[in-house]
Amino acid sequence: MSMDITFLGTGSAYPSPTRGASALVLRREGECWLFDCGEGTQTQFMKSHLKAGRITKIFITHLHGDHFFGLPGLLCTLSLQSSPDPNRRPVDIYGPLGLRHFILPTQDQCPAEEFKEFSYLDRDEVSPQGAQGRILHLDPVEHSYLLVEDEQLVLKAFRLFHRIPSFGFVVEEKPRTGKLDVQKLKDLGVQPGPLYGKLKNGTAVVLENGVTISPSDVLEDPIPGRKICILGDCSGVVGDAAVKLCCEADVLIHEATLDDTQEEKAREHGHSTPKMASDFAKLCKVKKLVLTHFSQRYKPAAQRGEGDTDITELRRQAESVLDGQEVTLAEDFMTIDIPMKKKKQRC
Amino acid sequence: MSMDITFLGTGSAYPSPTRGASALVLRREGECWLFDCGEGTQTQFMKSHLKAGRITKIFITHLHGDHFFGLPGLLCTLSLQSSPDPNRRPVDIYGPLGLRHFILPTQDQCPAEEFKEFSYLDRDEVSPQGAQGRILHLDPVEHSYLLVEDEQLVLKAFRLFHRIPSFGFVVEEKPRTGKLDVQKLKDLGVQPGPLYGKLKNGTAVVLENGVTISPSDVLEDPIPGRKICILGDCSGVVGDAAVKLCCEADVLIHEATLDDTQEEKAREHGHSTPKMASDFAKLCKVKKLVLTHFSQRYKPAAQRGEGDTDITELRRQAESVLDGQEVTLAEDFMTIDIPMKKKKQRC
Repeated sequence: MSMDITFLGTGSAYPSPTRGASALVLRREGECWLFDCGEGTQTQFMKSHLKAGRITKIFITHLHGDHFFGLPGLLCTLSLQSSPDPNRRPVDIYGPLGLRHFILPTQDQCPAEEFKEFSYLDRDEVSPQGAQGRILHLDPVEHSYLLVEDEQLVLKAFRLFHRIPSFGFVVEEKPRTGKLDVQKLKDLGVQPGPLYGKLKNGTAVVLENGVTISPSDVLEDPIPGRKICILGDCSGVVGDAAVKLCCEADVLIHEATLDDTQEEKAREHGHSTPKMASDFAKLCKVKKLVLTHFSQRYKPAAQRGEGDTDITELRRQAESVLDGQEVTLAEDFMTIDIPMKKKKQRC
Repeated sequence: MSMDITFLGTGSAYPSPTRGASALVLRREGECWLFDCGEGTQTQFMKSHLKAGRITKIFITHLHGDHFFGLPGLLCTLSLQSSPDPNRRPVDIYGPLGLRHFILPTQDQCPAEEFKEFSYLDRDEVSPQGAQGRILHLDPVEHSYLLVEDEQLVLKAFRLFHRIPSFGFVVEEKPRTGKLDVQKLKDLGVQPGPLYGKLKNGTAVVLENGVTISPSDVLEDPIPGRKICILGDCSGVVGDAAVKLCCEADVLIHEATLDDTQEEKAREHGHSTPKMASDFAKLCKVKKLVLTHFSQRYKPAAQRGEGDTDITELRRQAESVLDGQEVTLAEDFMTIDIPMKKKKQRC
């Protein structure tokens, strides 16, 4: 099952012609999950190979404008596009408290017949019949928020240090059943056929000779799923939960707004430098670190003009912490494939 | 005094890479007045020859997203840019009721120390000491709203027909004093000197021979100022006030979302076609009609690809109503100069 990440905006503070405001898409089985939605994200979609109509979920890391000011426009456009199809699944939106007040019209902003009442949410009440939306609460044991869980994956949020509440997200596929050990099955006298399917699906079988075979007898170790961590703006994580959640992630997407020489200024504004991002990546033993959310002064290497700061210095700073492990600097429209795993790993 | 208009977004419904969402700038003496601010306007500024930092006033025609979703981002960026200069004049924003709820953070959207209370506006009360903002009311005689008046010009708003309240704006320079008739002055025995200045400034003078000369005796007719009309989305104007206000405008900027063959659909959505725009232009005897706010299907002529609708058909439709008078189709980054007038005109 293919999975990839495309950056639609990699600049901080505001969108520019060289770096859009924060937005990235995790694509899986044709579905797009959008993480952050800075101003201009819908136009970035049009310039990319992705289709905004494929968005099924949107996650907002925090309520700074460069991360969510594109949301009202994107939602209106999706609504225009899908208006001939009333059966289209609604888009789920996850974000910090306060986001709803930004995207839902007030009574003086729309005709009376279009106004919808969501004030029950302000009182943290259960939604009335047919109404949607709810407040998610922190799991007091794991110190995370469970946002999505289905048969194939889990998505949790965790808290970051920033000037306002900011969140990181970890998307983790559930392990897949290991392969059947065909040699072992043959040794046990089980011939290829329907029993193989039963065992693969986790059901024990009884052979004609009365011997019971458990799936664990003949299945190889489960194959772990992929893990992707996407962090909002931060100068660090809150508590130990984040390190555990991000442990051995296949991809960690971390902000690096300023370079290492400006660490003091970065921390003062609740931001990170390449070294700070790499320190966290190292702690979590992540396999691939991707830096993004660069100050607009750092033009993409290919678009660098005379007098522009050399962004490749940020990569050098990050890699020096990771003992030479390669670090990627995100650019608008860059796509990163995340291949499936083939064997077990432990954290 | 130079005056020009630059289009930053000429598309309807949503911004696209070929046509930004609605935004145009009226520039006068280096000051920029922004009319509408669709998503992406701040990025369009960066791509243009204009500087967003020169914006002193913003006018929003109506509360459809493609006309104001760029406002929160633009304001944040202006605030970031001007933060080293606390003496910078605040930007005045004029728009329909409901706009304030979109651009001012609620209590759950920002830290307590950043929250500002503007609820007195909801009660249409006078602002407390130091607070700003007020509700403007319709002039019951002229059926317009007086938004700005200074020594040099007046800006009024008037009502349009659309699906929600929508406004047009007329910017009119006050007439300049006419030239001194030097021959007449000489005939009256007034020699060049300080008396000329007094007469030009509107003060009567008494000569040594006891004769009083009034300015009107020696001044030519006042030179009328320029008049620019910028209309929001509409399928027509409300009442007769608009025609009077827009009479003999130097430039009328009118929407033409769809072509004449789709007039029914246009009216159903509260929009205009080239013929509808030209009919109004003809009624008002405007000197130059500029069409904008085109459906995104109409690519700018130079960017038209195979299968794209030919937008020049819209110009032909508009010009056929105006007996061949030239009509301009707006494109992003197009600038239109509005030269000063030299003689009196009457409406």
